[in-house]
Amino acid sequence: MSTGTSINLKVEKTKNSKLSQIDFNNLPFGQTFSDHMFVCDYKDGKWQTPQIIPYQNISLDPAAKIFHYGQSVFEGMKAYKDDQDQIWLFRPLENQKRINISSERLAMPAFPKNYFMEGLETLLKIDKEWIPQTPGSSLYIRPFIFATGVGFHASPADEYKFIIACAPSGPYFSGNVKVLIEEKYSRSANGGVGFAKAGGNYAGQFYPTELAVKKGYHQVIWTDDNTHEYIEEAGAMNIFVRIGDTLITSPTSDRILDGVTRKSILDIAKDENIPVEVRKFTVTELVEASKNGTLKEMFGAGTAAVVSPISLFGHKGENYELPEIENSYASRFKKRITDIQYNRAEDKFGWRYLVK
Amino acid sequence: MSTGTSINLKVEKTKNSKLSQIDFNNLPFGQTFSDHMFVCDYKDGKWQTPQIIPYQNISLDPAAKIFHYGQSVFEGMKAYKDDQDQIWLFRPLENQKRINISSERLAMPAFPKNYFMEGLETLLKIDKEWIPQTPGSSLYIRPFIFATGVGFHASPADEYKFIIACAPSGPYFSGNVKVLIEEKYSRSANGGVGFAKAGGNYAGQFYPTELAVKKGYHQVIWTDDNTHEYIEEAGAMNIFVRIGDTLITSPTSDRILDGVTRKSILDIAKDENIPVEVRKFTVTELVEASKNGTLKEMFGAGTAAVVSPISLFGHKGENYELPEIENSYASRFKKRITDIQYNRAEDKFGWRYLVK
Repeated sequence: MSTGTSINLKVEKTKNSKLSQIDFNNLPFGQTFSDHMFVCDYKDGKWQTPQIIPYQNISLDPAAKIFHYGQSVFEGMKAYKDDQDQIWLFRPLENQKRINISSERLAMPAFPKNYFMEGLETLLKIDKEWIPQTPGSSLYIRPFIFATGVGFHASPADEYKFIIACAPSGPYFSGNVKVLIEEKYSRSANGGVGFAKAGGNYAGQFYPTELAVKKGYHQVIWTDDNTHEYIEEAGAMNIFVRIGDTLITSPTSDRILDGVTRKSILDIAKDENIPVEVRKFTVTELVEASKNGTLKEMFGAGTAAVVSPISLFGHKGENYELPEIENSYASRFKKRITDIQYNRAEDKFGWRYLVK
Repeated sequence: MSTGTSINLKVEKTKNSKLSQIDFNNLPFGQTFSDHMFVCDYKDGKWQTPQIIPYQNISLDPAAKIFHYGQSVFEGMKAYKDDQDQIWLFRPLENQKRINISSERLAMPAFPKNYFMEGLETLLKIDKEWIPQTPGSSLYIRPFIFATGVGFHASPADEYKFIIACAPSGPYFSGNVKVLIEEKYSRSANGGVGFAKAGGNYAGQFYPTELAVKKGYHQVIWTDDNTHEYIEEAGAMNIFVRIGDTLITSPTSDRILDGVTRKSILDIAKDENIPVEVRKFTVTELVEASKNGTLKEMFGAGTAAVVSPISLFGHKGENYELPEIENSYASRFKKRITDIQYNRAEDKFGWRYLVK
């Protein structure tokens, strides 16, 4: 079967849907997967015929470079369903562009825009029933590319696989988040791959995060690797703080992901006449603002985390609690973004994308 | 079939050896693989029954965390055959220890020493005919561990696979190496994972290395990410320089791999009464020494690269040639190490390890 789309996408549907096994009222994050996946292989210097096939295992040579040299990048997106059963995406072209920015830094081939978008949209239409309508839930979408080419020589692979898989998911965090501002470990280097959604950026965070979890925190906020003074990001989310009425976030750099939710919040803040400073800021500044009562809010922002309020930060053995405030920036941004995502409000920015 | 070893290793031999297809006089590095592999799975909180099976593809869920979060570490070792057909390893316990140091930093479980050593030795005996005896060749051994556990949550996997695969291999470099001292990109951060043999450390080097290759170099020499002044390592090898008669190499750190060949060279230098300085050194120092004629040698050292002389380094658009000298340190170290490895000379250090 072919859909007859311009990319000659081949579609093979499952004969054994797992849909009836899913409890949509009790969804974990990213642990159950929809019936189909989009797959496209790169070999002989080009992307081959893309396919949608039943979600299934992948067979790889043990010398495939993904196992040895970490050549992989990914994206995180979500599909939302409104009460007219329409499917929506949020700024999908930002993810489409960013996966190619990540790939370039990892010496991997760019994936064509029309393959990405048509593959994604066709997959969502086929797995439409997998998009949750329960509050706070959505279909988490994971486009990813990894090296399948073989060899122990430390050099880029000559073959790759691009996949889009989907997981109906509940919230990434349950409740407020406690964070530890890191003083020893680092996420990324100047001139490194921190700005890319590269697999290896995540594995390096797990051990320091586990140490923080043992101390009672949920996440680490990463600082610059030279002084550990400058606040960077939290690995799964960009970080915003509110001092007085001013919203502050770090500028993106080669160490900080250019988050889609981050830039959407900056646009919303501008629209709501909230004073914004995109500038470097330090732990010392946060501690002082906490002590003198001007630190009103901290929150994380990302596709998986949406807008996640931070209730406490730890630093050098001290904990600093954030106040509970009415009509917080975090709650305002979260409402505006999710109202656009779920087609519950006007979208003056043109961010919503209907899958037809 | 069981070997009856203490680890209850199960062995299934191939019925279709590929040995006759291999041209041992024309071996690339790490591109053809021996008949068998050692495999052990981690699940339910422990390592399961280890097996030696025919070299074959691995089947993985598309949500296996190796594809998304780069949780993988590896080692590089070699097996050598002497003219009595005996199999030798070089300081294998150093690799056994180091893979667990790498795993800890990547939040992965340690692999038991007896599983590692018995699995490796049994595999080498079964694939003995795959160990080349052609000069400069050896059986490259690749132990590696990666995350097979499933999920899109950015957290450590709960299942892993340990594999040892082998590739009869010729030299990693053909001839002298031209290197570019990096001024913009970085390999690792303070407090990062640079000291670990983590997959993600390698993918991040490919793009800057490709840029260097386009300029006519073979490898990048990485510098500190803050000032790009301090010489660190070359990704696939540690770096030594000789200024006057003094051998200089950087101290290991959380950004620099504690290389087995590196530390063997330091011991040999001590044994040969060569003055050694293990200290930080700068590009400026190298350029000055090159200009005033005291820079006699540069070379890389690593299991794959053995001892690889550097003929030229580039920095800020200038190339600095190294002189050709008689009885170089590099040639002396290479001869002493390979004579021990191939059982051609006395081993006063106790580095050689007979596989019985």
